[in-house]
Amino acid sequence: MNYNSKSNISAPEPRYTVGVDMGGTGTAFAIVDSDGRIAGRGKVPTLGFDTPADFVTKLCEEIDRLMVETHLKDKVFAIGIGAPCANAVTGVIEAATDLPWPSPIPLARLVEEKSGLPVFISNDANAAAAGEMAYGAARGCNNFIMITLGTGVGAGVVCDGHLLSGSRGFAAELGHVTVSNDPTRPCGCGRNGCLQTYCSASGVVNTARRLLADPHEPSLLREIPEKDMTTLDIFNAAVKGDKIALRTFSETGRALGEAAANFAAFTDPDLIILFGGVANAGEFIIPAMREALNKKALHLYRDRIEILRSALPDADAALLGAASLPYLNEY
Amino acid sequence: MNYNSKSNISAPEPRYTVGVDMGGTGTAFAIVDSDGRIAGRGKVPTLGFDTPADFVTKLCEEIDRLMVETHLKDKVFAIGIGAPCANAVTGVIEAATDLPWPSPIPLARLVEEKSGLPVFISNDANAAAAGEMAYGAARGCNNFIMITLGTGVGAGVVCDGHLLSGSRGFAAELGHVTVSNDPTRPCGCGRNGCLQTYCSASGVVNTARRLLADPHEPSLLREIPEKDMTTLDIFNAAVKGDKIALRTFSETGRALGEAAANFAAFTDPDLIILFGGVANAGEFIIPAMREALNKKALHLYRDRIEILRSALPDADAALLGAASLPYLNEY
Repeated sequence: MNYNSKSNISAPEPRYTVGVDMGGTGTAFAIVDSDGRIAGRGKVPTLGFDTPADFVTKLCEEIDRLMVETHLKDKVFAIGIGAPCANAVTGVIEAATDLPWPSPIPLARLVEEKSGLPVFISNDANAAAAGEMAYGAARGCNNFIMITLGTGVGAGVVCDGHLLSGSRGFAAELGHVTVSNDPTRPCGCGRNGCLQTYCSASGVVNTARRLLADPHEPSLLREIPEKDMTTLDIFNAAVKGDKIALRTFSETGRALGEAAANFAAFTDPDLIILFGGVANAGEFIIPAMREALNKKALHLYRDRIEILRSALPDADAALLGAASLPYLNEY
Repeated sequence: MNYNSKSNISAPEPRYTVGVDMGGTGTAFAIVDSDGRIAGRGKVPTLGFDTPADFVTKLCEEIDRLMVETHLKDKVFAIGIGAPCANAVTGVIEAATDLPWPSPIPLARLVEEKSGLPVFISNDANAAAAGEMAYGAARGCNNFIMITLGTGVGAGVVCDGHLLSGSRGFAAELGHVTVSNDPTRPCGCGRNGCLQTYCSASGVVNTARRLLADPHEPSLLREIPEKDMTTLDIFNAAVKGDKIALRTFSETGRALGEAAANFAAFTDPDLIILFGGVANAGEFIIPAMREALNKKALHLYRDRIEILRSALPDADAALLGAASLPYLNEY
C-alpha cells in the first residue's frame, strides 16, 4: 500500500502547472499538464520594467489571461520558475548578472503574492533535472545526474528520488568540481581546472585550439578564424569526419567521463543525462565519456551507469523543467 | 508549526532501539534510548556458528534476555545493525570478506523473522553518520559529510536531512574518489590515487615513509622499523613536535581538504565530521584540512564549512550508530 497514492475510484482529473522560463531579455511561460503536454504558452519581456515587482505584475497578468483563455484557471495548482541563480531553498534570485535589476530578488514571494498560487523556483540546471524526472529520460529513475553543457556547466543531482538542494541551495555545482590544476584552463570563478573549463562551450573551443596548435594535422577548422570558432563549427567539422573536431569532442567526453567516475562514488546513480548546446554533439562525446567512466570508476559502478541525452525537446526544455518543479515534493 | 512534532501535552514516553555492531569475531549489542544513553549491553561471538541463521538465533536470544532484564521489552521498537558491506537498500550483507560465512547474507530478514522487530542495517560509515545525526556532532544538522578514517576511508553523506543510499546502496564511497593518478598510491580496489591511499591508516604511514626518504630531516620515527610503523607511532612523534610526523598529518589534512572542496560542490554541506582511528590525530590534521578546503573550494562554500571530530565516544560509536539507524526515516 502506497500511502501517498490518490484514490483510484475514478480517473484522476488532469492536473496543470505553469512553467516560467525567465531570461535576461525575455520570459516565456506555458501551462503544462502532468504528462508534459503544453496546453498554452505566452511570453513577456524581462527588460523594460523599473522593478522586479512591476515585471511580476505584468507576468502574472499574462499568465492569468492564458489560464482564462485555455479554461484551465481552476486546474492549475502551482507555478514553477526556472531562473538564473535562483535558489530553491530561499526562493530568492541571488547575484544574477544577466537580469536587469539588482539582486537579491525575492521572486517566489513576489509571484506568490500576485498570483495566489504556490510558487517553486530553481536554477536552470535543477529545473532541467526536475523536467527530465517528470517528463523525460529519467521518468521512474530515482538516481541520476543531469549535466547541462552550455555557456557554463551546471548540474542537478537526484539521489533516492530527491533533488539535492544542500544547506544553502548550492548543491550540484558540478561544473566547478576541480579536475586539474592546469593554469591554461582558467575558470570564471577565479580558480583553474574546473570541469566547465573543459566541457562548456568555451572549454570545448579551448580544446580545439590546443589540438590545432599541432601544425601537421590538417583540419577544416583552420578555415575559421580562431577567435570566431564555435562549438557548432566544431560539430559541423566532426560530422564531416574532421579528425581534430572528432578528437575535440572525444577529449570533452573523456573529461566528463573521468569526472563522472567520481560523481558515481557520491550518489551511485543509474543514469547520467546530458543537456544543453554542447550536448547536441552527444554522438561524438558520449562514446568517449562512457569509455572513460567505465575505465576510471570503482568496480561497483562500472558498466552499470547509462549515459543519455535529454529526452525533452530542446526548444521547450527550460519551460518544461520549470513546469515540473511543483511535482518535486511528490516523489 | 512543525507537523512532525509529537504531542507535548505530557512528557513523551522514552523510546528505545537495539544497536548491533557486528564484527568478524564478536558482535556487540546494546539497548539505547533516543538520546543515545545505553540502558544495557551484551556481546555474542560471531565465530563458531555453522550458518548465519544459527548466529542470528543466538543473537536474538541474547537481545531478548537483555530486554527482559532491563524491563524494556515493550519499549524497544526496532533494531539497527551496523555490519561490514551491509547494504541498506537490500538489507543484505554483500561480499563481506571478514565474516565467517559466504555472502550474500540476508541479515535484515533473518533478524526480523527471529526478533519480530523492524530491522535496519547499514555499513559502518553510514551507521556512523546516522549516529552523529541522532546523538552526536550533527544533531540538528541536515547537511553534513561523515568521513571515517581507519583501515580504509568510508563516508556517509547527509543532504537535506537524508542519508544518501543511491541506486544500489553504494552512495558515499568517498574513500574511492580518485584524487591523483600516482602509481605509488595503489589502492586495494585495483586503481591508483583513491582518497584512501592518502588518508587511511596505511595511507598516512605511506606519506610518513616518503617524507622519511629525505635523509637530512631528523625524526623520532627513524627509530621505528619502517615496516612496523603505525599511525599511533606517528601521532606520538607529532605530540613531541617531530617535524616529519607533523608534516605527515598536515599532508593528510591537505589531501582531505582538497577532496572536501569537491565534495562541497556536490551537497553544499555545513559540516564535515571526521571519525575513526586516524581522526584521533585530528588536532594535527584538521588545521591543514581547513586551510586546503577554504583555499580550493568555490567561493560559495569558502569559510562556511565547519570541520569537527566525532562527538560520539570512540568505544561505543559503532553501537550508537547502529542504534540510531531506525530513526533515519523520521528526519
